[in-house]
Amino acid sequence: MKIATLTVVGVGLIGGSIGLAARKRGIAERILGVGRNKTTLERAQSLGAIDAGVGDLNEAVHQADVAVFCTPVDRIAEQILASAPGCRPGTLLTDAGSTKGRIVAAVEDRLPAGVSYVGSHPLAGSEKRGPENADADLLQDRLVVITRTPRTDVAALERIAAFWKSLGARVCVMAPDEHDAALALTSHLPHLAAAALAGILSPHLHALTATGFRDTTRVAAGDPELWSAIFSQNRPALLEMLGLLETRLTEFKNALLEEGEKTIRALLDQAKRNRDALGS
Amino acid sequence: MKIATLTVVGVGLIGGSIGLAARKRGIAERILGVGRNKTTLERAQSLGAIDAGVGDLNEAVHQADVAVFCTPVDRIAEQILASAPGCRPGTLLTDAGSTKGRIVAAVEDRLPAGVSYVGSHPLAGSEKRGPENADADLLQDRLVVITRTPRTDVAALERIAAFWKSLGARVCVMAPDEHDAALALTSHLPHLAAAALAGILSPHLHALTATGFRDTTRVAAGDPELWSAIFSQNRPALLEMLGLLETRLTEFKNALLEEGEKTIRALLDQAKRNRDALGS
Repeated sequence: MKIATLTVVGVGLIGGSIGLAARKRGIAERILGVGRNKTTLERAQSLGAIDAGVGDLNEAVHQADVAVFCTPVDRIAEQILASAPGCRPGTLLTDAGSTKGRIVAAVEDRLPAGVSYVGSHPLAGSEKRGPENADADLLQDRLVVITRTPRTDVAALERIAAFWKSLGARVCVMAPDEHDAALALTSHLPHLAAAALAGILSPHLHALTATGFRDTTRVAAGDPELWSAIFSQNRPALLEMLGLLETRLTEFKNALLEEGEKTIRALLDQAKRNRDALGS
Repeated sequence: MKIATLTVVGVGLIGGSIGLAARKRGIAERILGVGRNKTTLERAQSLGAIDAGVGDLNEAVHQADVAVFCTPVDRIAEQILASAPGCRPGTLLTDAGSTKGRIVAAVEDRLPAGVSYVGSHPLAGSEKRGPENADADLLQDRLVVITRTPRTDVAALERIAAFWKSLGARVCVMAPDEHDAALALTSHLPHLAAAALAGILSPHLHALTATGFRDTTRVAAGDPELWSAIFSQNRPALLEMLGLLETRLTEFKNALLEEGEKTIRALLDQAKRNRDALGS
């Protein structure tokens, strides 16, 4: 895939990594970055993630052949809808948001003729933020979920798939709600659980934590603003998965209360089988 | 500290690492390893963690100046009580168990004159097992909790502290119950939560996990037999901490149900502050 102008809206960890990957692989002739913070844009430029920083969203998106919105999930739809009018026919819009249902529903059918949007979610990230943590190989071999609905333009979907593959990622196609249900369990619930564990740690116990506590709670260092927006956007699915977790915790509690070592052992065995299947 | 004969009972990850550290730092003239599995003993010997493997517990412990029991928590007390008679006066016994209350209570006051036991728990470990994962630097700068009760021989406690320090660790002294309450929150509860999360993951969602899920559930790959024994030994404290976690999860749930974004944000903010304070 070759892109004349790639516009990255939001040049943080993900946006910066997309820019670096596009440059490293020679995908784009020019990479524009959009952001409200001039210092962040300058940093992204000096790191080579973008060729130029642009303060005005419309100005940068209207020059794009492909624009990727890497902003918080509660801002993506409004930014796409604000900047799509004025895009040239053939412009491809996508995003990197961790939720898909509400974004896709808000954007679909509201775009000017010739401008296409396909939702994306690269399953890559970190509790770290900012272009200084961006990595040209962050997407390498990672899975990007691309959304498809009855209204999705299949040709646009194919081009977005080719875009992510050209950055080194693998892709799979899912319905937005299917994505949100899955990620509620594989990403949003672990974040909630990690935050609950980290939140109940008294300061006097900090010294008594080791790698187990640190691994289990690592994601709780993520940006609370980004994550509260994700939780809010995926509320029903997250509540359902939280119910599953509560039920499983109750099974552990009852087994402990009844001194049911066999039950505890069976629960731990099943967890180990699942975890081992994921690899390190 | 110089030890003529150091006996390590159980030459897995922790026991093997103690042997390697003692050798690297020249702490012991001779290191004996005890285990039921001949292959494991041979592997530990070929890796340099022990000088010789001994199948008979009493034979190896009776030759020791210092013996460290690195076996599962539900076997430590019985092994100490079985092997202590026949030890020479001045022999120091300690362990590396993740729980302390029941072990210390079972052993204290039941030892022959001149033989001392002080409970220890090195806060170092991994979901991995076996001498092949042992590391001479596993204890480097790690904290070892040493237990003290009104019956603890203070001279023995000082020598056990010196032993762990000579292996590169830091030490702190706590009452056994204080240790167990702290570790219920900092180690046993995270393990339980990680196992609950890993356990509810359907196989068809494995491909949709990324580093967040993997970090949060990493410890669930730990040995179910070891961990069900730890849970069982620390049942009351673990149940109490599980109650704290359930309460915090209910706070998240209620905030989600009420669309209380401010509350969610506050819970995530507090979690991030705690997690940031721990470092990476």
